[in-house]
Amino acid sequence: MSDKATTSTGSVGVVGLGSMGSGMAGSLVAAGLDAYGFDVNSAAVDRFVAAGGKSGDLQDLAGRFSCVVLVVLNAPQTEQILFGPSGLAAKLGKGTAIIACATVPPQFAEDMAARCEALDLHYLDAPISGGSVKAAKGQLTIMASGADAAFAAAQPALNAMAERVFNLGPKPGTGSAMKAVNQLLAGVHIAAMAEAMTFGMAHGVDGQQMVDVISQCAGSSWMFENRGPHVVAGDYTPHSAVDIWPKDLGIVLDMARGKKFGAPLTAAALQQFLAASGSGLGAEDDAAVAKVYARNAGLDLPAKA
Amino acid sequence: MSDKATTSTGSVGVVGLGSMGSGMAGSLVAAGLDAYGFDVNSAAVDRFVAAGGKSGDLQDLAGRFSCVVLVVLNAPQTEQILFGPSGLAAKLGKGTAIIACATVPPQFAEDMAARCEALDLHYLDAPISGGSVKAAKGQLTIMASGADAAFAAAQPALNAMAERVFNLGPKPGTGSAMKAVNQLLAGVHIAAMAEAMTFGMAHGVDGQQMVDVISQCAGSSWMFENRGPHVVAGDYTPHSAVDIWPKDLGIVLDMARGKKFGAPLTAAALQQFLAASGSGLGAEDDAAVAKVYARNAGLDLPAKA
Repeated sequence: MSDKATTSTGSVGVVGLGSMGSGMAGSLVAAGLDAYGFDVNSAAVDRFVAAGGKSGDLQDLAGRFSCVVLVVLNAPQTEQILFGPSGLAAKLGKGTAIIACATVPPQFAEDMAARCEALDLHYLDAPISGGSVKAAKGQLTIMASGADAAFAAAQPALNAMAERVFNLGPKPGTGSAMKAVNQLLAGVHIAAMAEAMTFGMAHGVDGQQMVDVISQCAGSSWMFENRGPHVVAGDYTPHSAVDIWPKDLGIVLDMARGKKFGAPLTAAALQQFLAASGSGLGAEDDAAVAKVYARNAGLDLPAKA
Repeated sequence: MSDKATTSTGSVGVVGLGSMGSGMAGSLVAAGLDAYGFDVNSAAVDRFVAAGGKSGDLQDLAGRFSCVVLVVLNAPQTEQILFGPSGLAAKLGKGTAIIACATVPPQFAEDMAARCEALDLHYLDAPISGGSVKAAKGQLTIMASGADAAFAAAQPALNAMAERVFNLGPKPGTGSAMKAVNQLLAGVHIAAMAEAMTFGMAHGVDGQQMVDVISQCAGSSWMFENRGPHVVAGDYTPHSAVDIWPKDLGIVLDMARGKKFGAPLTAAALQQFLAASGSGLGAEDDAAVAKVYARNAGLDLPAKA
């Protein structure tokens, strides 16, 4: 029996059941995989189990996974889970695939892959895009790089979680570099949405009309269409929080500085997110960066109905 | 017979046969309207006539138009054509609709509409979006405001030129304010495309792969999908030139300053377009703003095959 067939039938563990991870774990269950979920937040674990998932002690269960999906916040959490004091890497069976989804610097992904390879583990540098709604539907986009063996062992889980999986080649770090490109654009586009919506409102243009018209024009973006309605509705329930952006645009600008690459729009967008976070909006939906613009312009934004 | 029925069957004149105007005039011909085209560039007129359009002396023909479409560069040209030394406004029949498509400040549109109304002409503040390809197919988006009579007289021409016509209400200026919102976003998104593509290339990400992947991710925009391929192909044939943006983002920032509205992303994008224009790229496709980033980062962009 080939490695691929063996690994295809093993269990899958998801570490991190936040807004993205819970949806991804649910997609594994929906696809009929033997899926286990883990989170420090026991309520999140309970919700997953109530929805048909399994859980238990991560250390005890580690040996049964053909694949582990890490949907944590950042590089330090990824490293802690794999190589911390009770690190998972030492407990996983040889040939296990590790699908690492956090947005991290490319160099970090390369380092992790090398350390995993030394333990005969297959590290897939596999950042995700699409948001929590698509995560819950198994419709994410995954931009992944890693060895063929990593893709083979991860394939059943990737198929269950994603509508599109881009194989960006064998080099860990390429996935994370692509994710950085995406985050640069996504962050700039959210801030641009906020700048444009408040600029229009300051000139008497109706918010809903802006969403309707611009969505059909060359000025549209995925983020404009997705976040613009939040501003119109005055609803800042955090589907994706302001505080994501100081982190992710920080990674982008660190990478840029490393190549002596000037990124003035990214830098300007970061300042707006920092102003949002610094003024107490960090846990709100990232569309709340519009409040920074509104405050500076003496403008009243639409209130929640 | 009602005014609407009378005007619906009249001739339509298009002033300005550039990349947008020639496509729009062609759409009028394709829709079976009696369309005349005018331009200071006689080669553009010849092409329009060879494609089935009519032309002649604008002053002599003015009286037969139920509708005139102005597809010129800016506010001064619009004013010159209507109210200059040989101004068209004095020669048009009462009730003629003027579809004014240039990107102009909202206050200018209000002024023009008032001066037209004094002559019993119907001024429609009707900026366009979609680019030259959609213009040629009659698939533009038109964001228009003006009196009901202006819409009624303009309807046959609007229908022929546009896939979508947004009626933004009776106040001239609202169309132009919406266009300013669109241009803010479009300009920022082009510069962001350039920043992201060159940032990715500086980190070893393949250009075509970026276009393929990001187009399926939350970082996408209309401009990224449209202009990104120009950078990958190294083809800067000007479908829309760099020099559009110092003009249009200048209008946006003048409007912003008038409301004491800070627009840091727009301001940053303008600087990049100014650097492109100042270094001799003004007549190239606006995707050539990527060359500013590449030059600053010591990066070689893809050359044209």
